[in-house]
Amino acid sequence: MIDMRTVDLIQKKREGGEHSAQEIRYLIDSFARGETPDYQMSAWMMALLLRGATAAEAAALTEAMLDSGARLSWDGLAGAKVDKHSTGGVGDKTSLIVGPVAAAGGLIVPMVSGRGLGHTGGTLDKLESIPGFNAQLTARQMRKVLEKTGCCITGQTAEIAPADKKMYALRDVTATVESPALICASIMSKKLAEGLDALVLDVKTGSGAFMKQEQEAEHLARLMVEAGERMGTRMTAVITDMSEPLGRAAGNALEVAECRAILSGQRDPLSEDLRELSIELAAWMFRLGGRAGEGVEAGALAERLMANGAALERFEAMARAQGATGRKLPEARQQKEFTAAADGFLACVDCAKVGLAVLALGGGRSRQEDRIDHAVGLVLHKKAGDAVRAGEAIAIVHYNDGANLEEALGWLRRAYRIDDKPAAEKRKLVKRIICQAKDKP
Amino acid sequence: MIDMRTVDLIQKKREGGEHSAQEIRYLIDSFARGETPDYQMSAWMMALLLRGATAAEAAALTEAMLDSGARLSWDGLAGAKVDKHSTGGVGDKTSLIVGPVAAAGGLIVPMVSGRGLGHTGGTLDKLESIPGFNAQLTARQMRKVLEKTGCCITGQTAEIAPADKKMYALRDVTATVESPALICASIMSKKLAEGLDALVLDVKTGSGAFMKQEQEAEHLARLMVEAGERMGTRMTAVITDMSEPLGRAAGNALEVAECRAILSGQRDPLSEDLRELSIELAAWMFRLGGRAGEGVEAGALAERLMANGAALERFEAMARAQGATGRKLPEARQQKEFTAAADGFLACVDCAKVGLAVLALGGGRSRQEDRIDHAVGLVLHKKAGDAVRAGEAIAIVHYNDGANLEEALGWLRRAYRIDDKPAAEKRKLVKRIICQAKDKP
Repeated sequence: MIDMRTVDLIQKKREGGEHSAQEIRYLIDSFARGETPDYQMSAWMMALLLRGATAAEAAALTEAMLDSGARLSWDGLAGAKVDKHSTGGVGDKTSLIVGPVAAAGGLIVPMVSGRGLGHTGGTLDKLESIPGFNAQLTARQMRKVLEKTGCCITGQTAEIAPADKKMYALRDVTATVESPALICASIMSKKLAEGLDALVLDVKTGSGAFMKQEQEAEHLARLMVEAGERMGTRMTAVITDMSEPLGRAAGNALEVAECRAILSGQRDPLSEDLRELSIELAAWMFRLGGRAGEGVEAGALAERLMANGAALERFEAMARAQGATGRKLPEARQQKEFTAAADGFLACVDCAKVGLAVLALGGGRSRQEDRIDHAVGLVLHKKAGDAVRAGEAIAIVHYNDGANLEEALGWLRRAYRIDDKPAAEKRKLVKRIICQAKDKP
Repeated sequence: MIDMRTVDLIQKKREGGEHSAQEIRYLIDSFARGETPDYQMSAWMMALLLRGATAAEAAALTEAMLDSGARLSWDGLAGAKVDKHSTGGVGDKTSLIVGPVAAAGGLIVPMVSGRGLGHTGGTLDKLESIPGFNAQLTARQMRKVLEKTGCCITGQTAEIAPADKKMYALRDVTATVESPALICASIMSKKLAEGLDALVLDVKTGSGAFMKQEQEAEHLARLMVEAGERMGTRMTAVITDMSEPLGRAAGNALEVAECRAILSGQRDPLSEDLRELSIELAAWMFRLGGRAGEGVEAGALAERLMANGAALERFEAMARAQGATGRKLPEARQQKEFTAAADGFLACVDCAKVGLAVLALGGGRSRQEDRIDHAVGLVLHKKAGDAVRAGEAIAIVHYNDGANLEEALGWLRRAYRIDDKPAAEKRKLVKRIICQAKDKP
C-alpha cells in the first residue's frame, strides 16, 4: 500500500506541480478500483486541464490506463502488428482503406475503432452500413478474422482500458474532454491494448477537427508519439488538414462506396485528397512494420496493391469474415442539389458544419445513444478552390426525411462561401510528420 | 425550469467566463437538491479556484448559498443586530470579548461560530472549556439567551446554509478550499443567516493566518464587504496582523482566563494587542450599530464597559444562560518552561507553528472528529521584539501528557528565533480598514 492521499495529488496539480509516474498510477488504480471517488477525479482532471501536463505525465497516464485492462496478444500470428488511428473529422474514411491495404502488404492490422459523435463520423458506423457487418467482435473472433484476412475493424471490448471508459464518461459531463494529456491517454491506452509493434497517427487540424489550431494538434501528436515510444511501440504521427471534407462523400454508406472505388485503384479528382492521404498513411505503416525500405518504396507498394485488386479483395474478405451478407448498401430515397448562389470560387469556411449537415440528415449522433440512418449524407461535386457558376451543384444531398433537408442545407450554406478569387494559399494536405517525440520542428 | 446545463456552466468557468447571478443560483440550487452531482460541483469549484471570480459572482454565490437555508429572525428583540467574524488565527479570542462588550453597549449579538482546525483555535472550543457551557443552541434557545443577555455564541444549526455544509465537505477532499470566492460565500452565507443589520470582519494576515499575504487578505475582505452590502448589511472589514499569537495565551481554557481579565478592565503588556484589537472591533460594531457618533466615541465606550465591570458581567450572564455551572476552568497537571537559547531579541518567524504546538499538546484538531483537551496550551512571557536572556522563559507550556511535550517544544523552537537586533519594523496590528467595497487603497 502506497502512502498517498488523492487530495494531496489534486492540490499538487492545482499548484502546477508535475506528478511522478507512481502518483499517476496510484490515482488511476484507485479510481479504477472505486476508491478514489468521481468527485475527486473530476477535480483532478479539471486541474490537469487548466495546469497542463508534461509528456512524461501523459505517458504515465497512458500506461496506467492501459494496465487497468487487458492487452490483446497475437502469439503465433506471423507479421508485424501495425495500426493507424485518426483523431476524427468529416469524410475521414482512411481506416477502411489503409487497413486492407496494409494487410494486403503483409501486415497484421487488429484495429479497434470508435463511433461518430457530433460533427465527426465514426469508422464503425460506416462499416455497419454494410448489411450484416459485425463491429463488436470478441478477442477470439478478432483472431479468427485476422488469421483469415490480416485485418479486422471492431469496437472496444469491455476488457480494454476500463479506467478510460470510466474517465471518459466523467470527462463528458465535467467539461474536461479537451485536455491534451487526457486525450492522449484515452486514445493511446486503447490503441496500445491492441498489442501493436507500431502505430501511425493521423492528427487532424482545421475547422473540421477537434484541434482547430495546428499548434494544438502538434502538441497532442508529440504527447502520443512519446507515450507510445516509451512503451516500446514504433510511432509516427502525421498532422493533416481537415479544413474541408476528405474525399467526395460524407455519410456512412456513401463513404463505404467511395472507399471501395479507391481500394480498386480508381481515380477521381474529387477523391484525390483521400487517395493521397491513404497512401501516405499506409506507407508509414509499411515503413514502421518493416515492409518497405531497401528497394521497396512504401508509397509505391500501397498504390500497387490498389491497382492490382489485392486491396479491395482484402476489404471484401474482411467484411465477409465479419458477417457481411453481400447485399448492397442502403440508398436514400431522395436527392437534392445544394447549389452555388453566385459565380466564383468555392471556399469551405467551416468544415465542421458539413458534418453537422450529415448529422441533421440523421447520419450522425448528437448523443451516444442515438440511432443512425446509414443511407443519408452528401456527395460533393466541387471541392474548395474550384470555380463554380451560380446554380451549379456543389453537392448532392441524399436524404430520407424532407423535414431534415432544410436544416442540412442551412448548415451547408454556413459551411461554404463563394469568393471572387481562389484562395491565395493552396491547401497543404500533410502539414507535418513527427517521427520521434524529441525532434523539434 | 431554467434551460441550463451544469456541464455548460463548468465549461464557461473553465474558459474564464463570468457567471450571471441566475447561472450561479441554478448551480447552487441544483447542487443543494442533489440534481447536480458532486463530481460536477468539484470540477466547477476547481475551475473557479483556478480561473477566479468577480465580486459580483462571489456575492451571487453568497446569496444563493444563504437562500439554500433559513434566515434567523429576531422580530420583537430591540436593538441593532451586529456581529463580528474573524478568519481565524492563533490566540485569536476577540469573539469572547467583543460579544459581551457590544451587548453591554446595547447591541444584540446572535453569534454563530465555529470550531478549530489545524493550527487555528475555535471560539466554540474555547467556550466549551467552561464547565457546562452549551455551544449547540437551537434557534429558540438562542432567542432566550439573547433576550436575557443580548449576546449568545453557538454553533451552526442544520437549517443554516445547508448548501455550504455540502460544499465545504466536498472542498475539503478536492483541494478547493482556498478559492477566495468560495471562502467569502461560505463565511458570509452563514453570517448573513444570523439576520444581521451589520457585520464587522476581522481578516487576518501573516504567518499564523490562512491568508499569508496582505494582498490576499484584502482581496477576500473586499469580496465579503461587497457581498454583505449588496444584501443590505452594513459592513466594515479590518485587516489585522497574525504574525504572532494574539495576547498571551494559546489553548482553550487559558484563553478564556485571559479574556476574563481583559473583560474586567485589567491591563497586562502581554495582552495589550488583544485588548487594543478587541476595542477596535467593538468600536466598529458600535459605529455600524448606531451606538456611537454624535458625542459618543466608540472606542471609549468599549473601554468604559470593560472598566466598569459591565462587560465581564455580560460575559458571565451569557455563560450561565448557556449552561455554565460556575465550576472553575480545567487546569493542566504539569508545566514546563520554553526557554531562550541565547541572549537577544525575540522574533516570531512562523506563528502557525505556535498553533501546531498547541495542537501537539492535544488542544486542537487535526481532523474534524478529534477530541480536544481544553486544559493544555501555553502562556507567553515574552512577545516578539522583547529582549530575552539565554535560559529565560519565553513561554510556559501547560501539558497533561509528557509524550506530547517534546513535539510541542519542537514546534515552538521552529516558531521563534533569537535575533541580535530587534526587528527594524514595528508590528502594525491594524493594517487597513475597508468600509466600502468600492474604496481603493
